[in-house]
Amino acid sequence: MNITDVSGLRVLAFDVFGTVVDWHGSIAREVDALALGVDAAEFARAWRAGYKPAMARVMSGELGWTRIDDLHRMILDDVLADFGVTSLGEEERGELNRVWHRLEPWPDSVEGLRRLKARYLVCTLSNGNIGLLANMAKNAGLPWDCILSAEVFRAYKPDPATYLGVADVFDVPPGAVMLVAAHQDDLAAARGCGLETAYVERPAEFGEDRPKDVSPDPANSMHAKDFVDLARQLGC
Amino acid sequence: MNITDVSGLRVLAFDVFGTVVDWHGSIAREVDALALGVDAAEFARAWRAGYKPAMARVMSGELGWTRIDDLHRMILDDVLADFGVTSLGEEERGELNRVWHRLEPWPDSVEGLRRLKARYLVCTLSNGNIGLLANMAKNAGLPWDCILSAEVFRAYKPDPATYLGVADVFDVPPGAVMLVAAHQDDLAAARGCGLETAYVERPAEFGEDRPKDVSPDPANSMHAKDFVDLARQLGC
Repeated sequence: MNITDVSGLRVLAFDVFGTVVDWHGSIAREVDALALGVDAAEFARAWRAGYKPAMARVMSGELGWTRIDDLHRMILDDVLADFGVTSLGEEERGELNRVWHRLEPWPDSVEGLRRLKARYLVCTLSNGNIGLLANMAKNAGLPWDCILSAEVFRAYKPDPATYLGVADVFDVPPGAVMLVAAHQDDLAAARGCGLETAYVERPAEFGEDRPKDVSPDPANSMHAKDFVDLARQLGC
Repeated sequence: MNITDVSGLRVLAFDVFGTVVDWHGSIAREVDALALGVDAAEFARAWRAGYKPAMARVMSGELGWTRIDDLHRMILDDVLADFGVTSLGEEERGELNRVWHRLEPWPDSVEGLRRLKARYLVCTLSNGNIGLLANMAKNAGLPWDCILSAEVFRAYKPDPATYLGVADVFDVPPGAVMLVAAHQDDLAAARGCGLETAYVERPAEFGEDRPKDVSPDPANSMHAKDFVDLARQLGC
């Protein structure tokens, strides 16, 4: 790990799905409650797995600009078919699709954000659309100073327009922004744009039964167990 | 005043300059403290008066898309020249220009927003840029659920893209959104897009010595003395 000079840091931008909220657990619980006769944990993983290919179709130009809410819905229809579920009507599919607005935070997220917010401007930098992120924040009590999204920049991460867009919006140099994420590829792309980076361990992102590698990458400015640990390391 | 059915209301979108914050008083106080030898109240009014003509130059295509921070700075240079001030250097002009990020809320704004937030999604709908609005909120303690700006829609109010953009972002019909503003022209444009409208009296917007007409317009859904009164009327 580098010893990082954070004296110039002004903005902490957070990846959201998996980093701030537990998409796997939240979706698995709702799917389980619907008693569809599917493996809810596998269903959650399949839904999430459709996300990057769907965004790639937008970024390649095959699809026009599309909000994640609409991509989630397209993927959901495919996943329901793949799992042989035919019992859900239009309204129930719409309601299930909005589970992404109701994702629950990790236990440390709200406390960590509150502490970090006392010293830094804390914002989202998510591929989720603005409405999704605002509803999620209201539901989960996430105290963002500002919600930034792919929808503002009309580009998804890891497009440089998103990382550099945060610095531009707040009129600061890229090095005054730190991306906080549980995904090394997101952090690597941010680093390539000159941002500081903090990796946060979320070993159960894909479920307790599928622990993921949370090894430190010394290229990151910081490595934290969770948001409260990050706050402590930043002296908040 | 109409008796308004607000049972379908989901989102309250707030105009900011003059409605949430006291631009005149805040700017006059900072200008006065600089001891420039100008009438600080007149200076504040002149700076603000340059705003609509500057936006018109952008919307006509004469200027490319320009953030309000940059428009404010262009106007400031003109106003300083008009008032015969030559003593401010580049850095001091930049610092003074950021007074718009430090505008102080009206005494009822924070309490009113907190109460309204308990029932509705509360967001900005301002021609101010995102960074300006986020810094202002952090400084003044304005508890927005979401910051929406002309910068998101790449159009200034009263362009319909801004009012309809709020409904679109939150995936609700226009009638589920109420614009709250101290300006009848802003409200009329929102009404033309199908939004509900609430007028808020800010008689001292242009200074205590220049009381403005705050007569009700029966075309609005609601008319309130201030945000606490609005909260009371909405049962919050």
